[in-house]
Amino acid sequence: MTPCPGHMWDGSQSSFTGPALDLYRRLDAMFVRLADRIGAQDYAFPTMISAKTLAKMNYFTSFPHAVTFAVALDRDEQNLERFRAEADRDAGAGRGITLTATQPVQEVLTPAACYHFYPLFANRTLSAPAYLTTRASCHRRETHYEPLRRQWCFGMREIVVIGTAAEARAFAERAKHEVATMLAALGLSATPTVATDPFFKPERNPLAIMQRLDPVKTEFVFGGDLAVASVNLHHDHFGGTFGIARDGKPAHTACLAFGIERWVHMICAQYGNNPADWPLADVETPPVRKRERVDA
Amino acid sequence: MTPCPGHMWDGSQSSFTGPALDLYRRLDAMFVRLADRIGAQDYAFPTMISAKTLAKMNYFTSFPHAVTFAVALDRDEQNLERFRAEADRDAGAGRGITLTATQPVQEVLTPAACYHFYPLFANRTLSAPAYLTTRASCHRRETHYEPLRRQWCFGMREIVVIGTAAEARAFAERAKHEVATMLAALGLSATPTVATDPFFKPERNPLAIMQRLDPVKTEFVFGGDLAVASVNLHHDHFGGTFGIARDGKPAHTACLAFGIERWVHMICAQYGNNPADWPLADVETPPVRKRERVDA
Repeated sequence: MTPCPGHMWDGSQSSFTGPALDLYRRLDAMFVRLADRIGAQDYAFPTMISAKTLAKMNYFTSFPHAVTFAVALDRDEQNLERFRAEADRDAGAGRGITLTATQPVQEVLTPAACYHFYPLFANRTLSAPAYLTTRASCHRRETHYEPLRRQWCFGMREIVVIGTAAEARAFAERAKHEVATMLAALGLSATPTVATDPFFKPERNPLAIMQRLDPVKTEFVFGGDLAVASVNLHHDHFGGTFGIARDGKPAHTACLAFGIERWVHMICAQYGNNPADWPLADVETPPVRKRERVDA
Repeated sequence: MTPCPGHMWDGSQSSFTGPALDLYRRLDAMFVRLADRIGAQDYAFPTMISAKTLAKMNYFTSFPHAVTFAVALDRDEQNLERFRAEADRDAGAGRGITLTATQPVQEVLTPAACYHFYPLFANRTLSAPAYLTTRASCHRRETHYEPLRRQWCFGMREIVVIGTAAEARAFAERAKHEVATMLAALGLSATPTVATDPFFKPERNPLAIMQRLDPVKTEFVFGGDLAVASVNLHHDHFGGTFGIARDGKPAHTACLAFGIERWVHMICAQYGNNPADWPLADVETPPVRKRERVDA
């Protein structure tokens, strides 16, 4: 009983084909058009991000429960022999597979699209604000999953600014306005709500306490409980951590993030299972632009 | 000294922006046009694939050295506390991070795009051949990596048939012809070569021995050592394993796979670093089609 034709669910992740895939792409194309209006340059990042980068953000202290590690076996031949003697049988039986000795863990599955940008701009001085965008597969371990609403792997489109405090604030204000306009144009209702990130033991984490004292995260909440987009002010947290300078000071950053599967869910919840009833049916995705500038 | 403007390398994976991203997308759009001519339906799959599915293919016995596991920590609070006490410091210092107790390992980073299709069609009887396509991020642990040529994470576009033995053979023949035509149109030279998969201890693996006795894999090899596309006949291996029937028998399958980063490499190796000299500059990616059929 899949509510959205062409959507498939394996218990923690979604696959797409047909109308659901089409809708997914039209939604992302709508986000890309917004990124274009903002003048954001598009990037594509790989699945993994280095643990070293996440450590600089204190990610492992703040979100140890959410991390998915990329782990490979030590290549010693006897180690591989020990592993393979059991693995196909255990995995086939639906038991978890038992790893033998592993290589040092240096990479993590990307937990948020924008985390790739800050190391990329590390130790640079910007003479103008940088507007950036990417769609990345993001990964968060949770206690339970729900189709399209809460997934181990999900698509996140982000638009990011790296600039002065005023440029970051102006971006965040515009982002909230643009999301509200987009929702209204699609006939959807999601309420802007002050929120905090899901820290481990928030009562003892200084970052979590800071977020409560100085609200920096606005989520657009659909149906009372589903955040479909968020606007985040990071102050100079990433600029300072990664040595990015703008106007003689550590750069400020802000981001606008869309959970693409959640927008698919919203459309189906609001308009039903018949693709003919969905909005965005006549919108075409933009063709690839002839030439793009590079400033990386 | 990046040879391709807009391409970035982190030691095992690539990121893209500007002209390199543009080229990457134009190449995939070219593969999608071929998939369209073949009548293949497009799918999008998530990062991970279940270990149970790979076990059915004896993947862990055959390629234990190549697997990347998706591993999360046991959520016990004391376990998470033990982990976070060290993790940010160790990862920040560039040492591998030490995992404390982990959850049972049930998921693996997708090693080949087409592996998602066989469980999807499991226990079905097809009244016509199914032509399918997807682009997936694929992951293979190797002893060394090279930008665009050999990556831990890379983009793979596949076109797949599930049908009778004759349908699979006809698809494989057409695929070889289409790849040769595509290469010629781009002014590129890659030689079709009989190949085998990189099995662990191939001399003792019955699947590897079978591959040598009955050649089923043709690779198009650029510059003497780089496989940029492969055409693979699986006989009824996947059809039998996953209970897919066609014409009263276990279905035969075949696939055509493109390593997208390797095509970016080929274009830069052949035409240099100036995007104005690249072919495909005037080709636009196809807009999203108005409606797609679903038969899943």
